[in-house]
Amino acid sequence: MGGARLDGTHDPALRSWVPSADGHPDFPIQNLPLGIFSPTGGARRAGIAIGDRILDLRGIAGLLSGEAARFVEAAGETLNGALALGAGPRRALRLRICELLRQGSPERAGIEPHLHEAASCTLHLPAAVGDYTDFYVGIHHATNVGRQFRPDNPLLPNYKWVPIGYHGRASSVVPSGTPVRRPNGQRKPAAETVPSFGPSRNLDYELELGIWIGPGNELGEPVPIGEAADRIAGYCLLNDWSARDIQGWEYQPLGPFLAKNFATTISPWIVTPEALAPFRAPQAPRPDGDPAPLPYLADEADAASGALAIELEALLVTADMKAKGMAPHRLALSDARHMYWTAAQLVAHHASGGCNLRPGDLLGSGTLSGPDRASCGSLLEATNGGREPIALPSGEERRFLQDGDEVILSARCRREGFAPIGFGECRGAILPAPSA
Amino acid sequence: MGGARLDGTHDPALRSWVPSADGHPDFPIQNLPLGIFSPTGGARRAGIAIGDRILDLRGIAGLLSGEAARFVEAAGETLNGALALGAGPRRALRLRICELLRQGSPERAGIEPHLHEAASCTLHLPAAVGDYTDFYVGIHHATNVGRQFRPDNPLLPNYKWVPIGYHGRASSVVPSGTPVRRPNGQRKPAAETVPSFGPSRNLDYELELGIWIGPGNELGEPVPIGEAADRIAGYCLLNDWSARDIQGWEYQPLGPFLAKNFATTISPWIVTPEALAPFRAPQAPRPDGDPAPLPYLADEADAASGALAIELEALLVTADMKAKGMAPHRLALSDARHMYWTAAQLVAHHASGGCNLRPGDLLGSGTLSGPDRASCGSLLEATNGGREPIALPSGEERRFLQDGDEVILSARCRREGFAPIGFGECRGAILPAPSA
Repeated sequence: MGGARLDGTHDPALRSWVPSADGHPDFPIQNLPLGIFSPTGGARRAGIAIGDRILDLRGIAGLLSGEAARFVEAAGETLNGALALGAGPRRALRLRICELLRQGSPERAGIEPHLHEAASCTLHLPAAVGDYTDFYVGIHHATNVGRQFRPDNPLLPNYKWVPIGYHGRASSVVPSGTPVRRPNGQRKPAAETVPSFGPSRNLDYELELGIWIGPGNELGEPVPIGEAADRIAGYCLLNDWSARDIQGWEYQPLGPFLAKNFATTISPWIVTPEALAPFRAPQAPRPDGDPAPLPYLADEADAASGALAIELEALLVTADMKAKGMAPHRLALSDARHMYWTAAQLVAHHASGGCNLRPGDLLGSGTLSGPDRASCGSLLEATNGGREPIALPSGEERRFLQDGDEVILSARCRREGFAPIGFGECRGAILPAPSA
Repeated sequence: MGGARLDGTHDPALRSWVPSADGHPDFPIQNLPLGIFSPTGGARRAGIAIGDRILDLRGIAGLLSGEAARFVEAAGETLNGALALGAGPRRALRLRICELLRQGSPERAGIEPHLHEAASCTLHLPAAVGDYTDFYVGIHHATNVGRQFRPDNPLLPNYKWVPIGYHGRASSVVPSGTPVRRPNGQRKPAAETVPSFGPSRNLDYELELGIWIGPGNELGEPVPIGEAADRIAGYCLLNDWSARDIQGWEYQPLGPFLAKNFATTISPWIVTPEALAPFRAPQAPRPDGDPAPLPYLADEADAASGALAIELEALLVTADMKAKGMAPHRLALSDARHMYWTAAQLVAHHASGGCNLRPGDLLGSGTLSGPDRASCGSLLEATNGGREPIALPSGEERRFLQDGDEVILSARCRREGFAPIGFGECRGAILPAPSA
């Protein structure tokens, strides 16, 4: 299982000489996520987040050797080439960077000039996304959405057999902080006889986990389930913005298109399988009566530890709340364990017909809602299709997102005996639609 | 309207000094399509097809200047950078290459060393496909397929309002000649209660027109319908291989996924809007009672001349027919005029919500069947869902494709007073599925 091994880099007693690292909610020395950044006025380059700083990997290349050096040499303005190398170089880099950044490292003086204040850097997409696929494996979400259409039979017959997914739009995947323009599109409310074109009235977010592909597979060559975890380079947060009114009108028979391709926001740091090793978990037991996975999706080791215990949170702050200095309001608190299929199963399924995955491809999990209203990872669910608005502390209410609203996704991994780590933010604010 | 202008390059009396060009069914001097090729042992480079030869554009760069030179400078191992430049440089290159290759050109001696025999070259994808979108705008196909599910009401209510499309898989777009491995996948025939995993039994082809995007648009900035044709860099043939049994089981509610992402074959030459100028046609009149396009899709000039009169043909040759030296059997003869929406309408719709198109993106038209059985561009239609097999001249019959079968798409543009041109071949043969 890729990255499941525990080693000295997971020691909760480890401390870093970078002052902000110890106790940092997202990026203590036990995390060391990978990204692409540019310092003010500088070019794009590979970096690792440590506390509120970013370490420039090219800058310290002289302190690396062997596999760790190979990773950095393969990274350019994107990480695609480095992700392609797989777990060996990625793990070697983690081990070495941990040595270099820990308390008492003799290299501190040589490294300090290559630490940039994260707040003054621009974070980019960590890789050029060749293809983006969005799955639908949050079973509570699929049930909640299905219930709005089919109250007695919310899940379709294929749901528990097939990891349902569709191809999304790669060009509009943007890093956290990029404003999101409300889309215009065709809307046809049930009460109207013909559609009209204009700004989406039912703009929504979706709380998802993103999965980065490392080594790919050749066209026509499936990835066996036992090798699938090794194809995963890491994870991020993903907001699959969705225009529900456009979606409802356009999606039959070929699925969502313009309703979702206007933007997908991701957190810019790749949290590696190595960093997540302490937070692996058994796959949730399938309810009685659910079919066993078909053999091409069945793997004992994956079932035993292929799930991830990651708390996922979605927050909303409106323009009015910002003006009043109010804290963001929690929309949802959920967990990645609500995936009906593991990330390895998604990879094996995706490649099972021979489709080639490439380094830097991105998969979304689908919305990861929990079983109750407080854990619903979309407004469609939380407001019951817009019928039951959410009350905000500013006195406002929301059925769907308004212009000026900002959605912030975050994550937290906690386990007794390990240092907690996070993912950083996945944030986007809504701009008004262009004139139609 | 991009490329609608007629000029001296369309003169049917033009002759080339390249011996095979005159009367060549695809590539006379009036065509001059763009591609990426490599000669035996050589690197990838930009070329233009002329007769049975390929002109190496870098090789003759010294004979170009101004806009034409800019096009070639922007082309590398792919044409993405050159396509991004739009109609000006593309048209300038066409004018100059026409001068250089026509009878009596004083530059013949300098050009001849840069002509490669096409049969000994490898043709590649002409551009790196950032995103591939497949539409569904062949109205006869949509009607035929819909009738199999809903005999009385084959077209869904959105069909005549929305140019229906979905995101396809970019990584598995391959050039003509690449073998296509039959996919394994989940199949659940109606007579069985649970699905099984194994080779698709209902493998099909789809006869489509491909559309290459030239200059793109920024995220959040729609493309007005009046400018949409200028975003098109050219056209190709496209075979959207489809595993109908996998499709039938997986596609609800998010559309086709593994049923189509194992391969999409395209013809490798980009036939430009300039070459197609003589073959522009009025959009087919909408039947009485059909709604007018919404304003964001309505453009008088586009309706007057935005359609394309291109005869499209699909041929099948089985392993047995090859062994017997038999000619391929025609599966379908259809026409690109069966598109319910023009290519410009597809571009404007795609960008209408702000989705960014990038140079080298590829759009498929959807299957372009005509109104009768002989013009059905898929076996699903031609065999009525596999119920009525096609008889082949070898004595074999086909409901769907067998291993060893090869499908060949071709195209022909003809109009009185102009030289006919074609697209070259879009060809793929079926290999057996990997062991499941």
